[in-house]
Amino acid sequence: MSLPFTIESQSAAARTGRITTPHGAVETPVFMPVATAGAVKSVPQDAVEELGAQIILGNTYHLYLRPGHELVRDLGGLHNFMSWERAILTDSGGFQVFSLSALRKITEDGVNFRSHLDGSSHFFTPERSIEIQIALGGDIIMAFDECTEHPADEARTRESMDLTLRWAKRCKNHFEQHNSEVPWHPAGRQALFGIVQGGMYGHLRRESAERTVEMEFDGYAVGGLSVGESREKTSEMIARTLQFLPTDKPRYVMGVGYPEEIAQYAAMGVDMMDCVLPTRAARHGLLFTSEGRLNIKNTRYARDQGPPDPRCGCKVCSRYTRAYLRHLFVTGEPLAGTLNTVHNLSFYLDTMRAVRHAICLGASSGILSGNLSSAARPERP
Amino acid sequence: MSLPFTIESQSAAARTGRITTPHGAVETPVFMPVATAGAVKSVPQDAVEELGAQIILGNTYHLYLRPGHELVRDLGGLHNFMSWERAILTDSGGFQVFSLSALRKITEDGVNFRSHLDGSSHFFTPERSIEIQIALGGDIIMAFDECTEHPADEARTRESMDLTLRWAKRCKNHFEQHNSEVPWHPAGRQALFGIVQGGMYGHLRRESAERTVEMEFDGYAVGGLSVGESREKTSEMIARTLQFLPTDKPRYVMGVGYPEEIAQYAAMGVDMMDCVLPTRAARHGLLFTSEGRLNIKNTRYARDQGPPDPRCGCKVCSRYTRAYLRHLFVTGEPLAGTLNTVHNLSFYLDTMRAVRHAICLGASSGILSGNLSSAARPERP
Repeated sequence: MSLPFTIESQSAAARTGRITTPHGAVETPVFMPVATAGAVKSVPQDAVEELGAQIILGNTYHLYLRPGHELVRDLGGLHNFMSWERAILTDSGGFQVFSLSALRKITEDGVNFRSHLDGSSHFFTPERSIEIQIALGGDIIMAFDECTEHPADEARTRESMDLTLRWAKRCKNHFEQHNSEVPWHPAGRQALFGIVQGGMYGHLRRESAERTVEMEFDGYAVGGLSVGESREKTSEMIARTLQFLPTDKPRYVMGVGYPEEIAQYAAMGVDMMDCVLPTRAARHGLLFTSEGRLNIKNTRYARDQGPPDPRCGCKVCSRYTRAYLRHLFVTGEPLAGTLNTVHNLSFYLDTMRAVRHAICLGASSGILSGNLSSAARPERP
Repeated sequence: MSLPFTIESQSAAARTGRITTPHGAVETPVFMPVATAGAVKSVPQDAVEELGAQIILGNTYHLYLRPGHELVRDLGGLHNFMSWERAILTDSGGFQVFSLSALRKITEDGVNFRSHLDGSSHFFTPERSIEIQIALGGDIIMAFDECTEHPADEARTRESMDLTLRWAKRCKNHFEQHNSEVPWHPAGRQALFGIVQGGMYGHLRRESAERTVEMEFDGYAVGGLSVGESREKTSEMIARTLQFLPTDKPRYVMGVGYPEEIAQYAAMGVDMMDCVLPTRAARHGLLFTSEGRLNIKNTRYARDQGPPDPRCGCKVCSRYTRAYLRHLFVTGEPLAGTLNTVHNLSFYLDTMRAVRHAICLGASSGILSGNLSSAARPERP
């Protein structure tokens, strides 16, 4: 009944593998582009396929509000609704409830919140989140957790962690009773991942990991990171968590990061990551390249006939110049968002392809300290 | 030295033909998608190619303001700048100066105007318009004309027409002296079209046509239409103009129209048309289909699993549902603009393909009174 996950090669802590979902295989370590409301912003599905994305992430909070999970379920689930035949992971809605909604009130039962769109009142419980995610029909769904705020003292962090653990159990119970209600039943079975919290406290990370693993999920996520802590702290908390997670299940770090971070975390043994950074930065004219970050609106690119990234083979770098992309951005042409996003996603997915290749070659340490980390250099001088 | 134009079939007044530009052949009658500032809004160049567009239209006014014609020239011309290897037509900037700019002042010499972007002051003369268009390097460029306002009395219309005729002569003179300065010289020669004005007065249309033809341009446009007159009047003025234009040169009606109009004008013997309608309407959620116009934001489409147009084979209709397109539009996803535009342009280009086919079959009247005109039906009840 569990999610098939095979490890294909290992190099130190890093590993490459393959998750077999009801909607195709996912080679790991994988970066998942974010398709918030059922679309990778500005990029048509065929272009996302061409980029080689094998799995994308949909946001439960957004899809619940619009178009509504019942509509999506009635139209065959999210794959069918958005015409995406490959794998989908949905988050639990927890993070957006905590970061986007207004006037939220947390009780043992769940979270009362107001929509950031129209102020309407809603109530999410662990059971409700799972119900919505079953209706959306992602291949992998996530337990409903409380993302502990940062900073938080140890007592508060433990309290929040304990709530997440109690909610995780409720999520699992509800999922076991209802997972056959997925729109594409019986073509396969959804997988449910647990989420480790514990804030910035290593011993709480360990406790959270061990107690989450006891409940036996299909995979484990490290949540509560990228909430304002230093990059060193993020990395430390990932390390402090990973060592207590089973090696034979996918390990997913949520909401990270810059290109050099995703390469680094993959080297540490992380199998899955997602982040809005490549798509959001693209819409603000920030391109990730092998030569560092490039702010395309800069005047210096006005007559630059080079491609965005001379070492990139994506459709954008093969066809367009920096001068043209700058022009599109400064004139507000909507095509700017599309082209910038295609390049940034290409860069992220290429980064993960290179990481997988390096791990297969048993050379992960080499590639990580070499070319890939240069991708994270700040704007060129 | 003239623009090669061969007529390949005729049916009553309609004809199919082929214009051979320095950047490829253009089958006529043709609809030219508008790429205002060097981009068909929301649609990457490869997608415009896939739609089968053989020529697109760039707006001189917009490109002059941003990124500037000198920059475009220095980077090899508009084809190179925007990475579009097929044909381009640029307008003269006249229409935008009259419709977009502020505080314009017209003299015999030219037009003083302020940019709609930043209020900066600019001066366009016929020579300046040609200079800019040579720098942009379109395959076909247009004489700088005054688009007579509507309504206008006969005296005012004649005065405006006379000014356009004097400007046309100056454009031709300047073009003959400078056309070898095109960025892609000596790969070919730009073509210059004259523009017929004359407002809503048939005898002035005749006089404007005859006097423009005397100057010997590579093709002739009918300007000053779609300025608020009735559709019958547009059609009448086109007819009153076409009969005085040579049959062996391309005839171009500027700024039209709805799908059934472009089919009708092609049947009348028009070879070229352009309009922002398919692209602009798409961004407002209005789709043109074989079943009539479809306002995609309408609640009735929320659960509609049919394609936008069941008789359309475009990439959007092959993959996405009305329900999904409605969701994208109402949530403000930028992908909505891309997908709606791809469909609308596909519908327009398919319409012209069908018209060309019908003309070849000698059945233009049949197809025009039949299927195609249904495309123009208002929103379904």
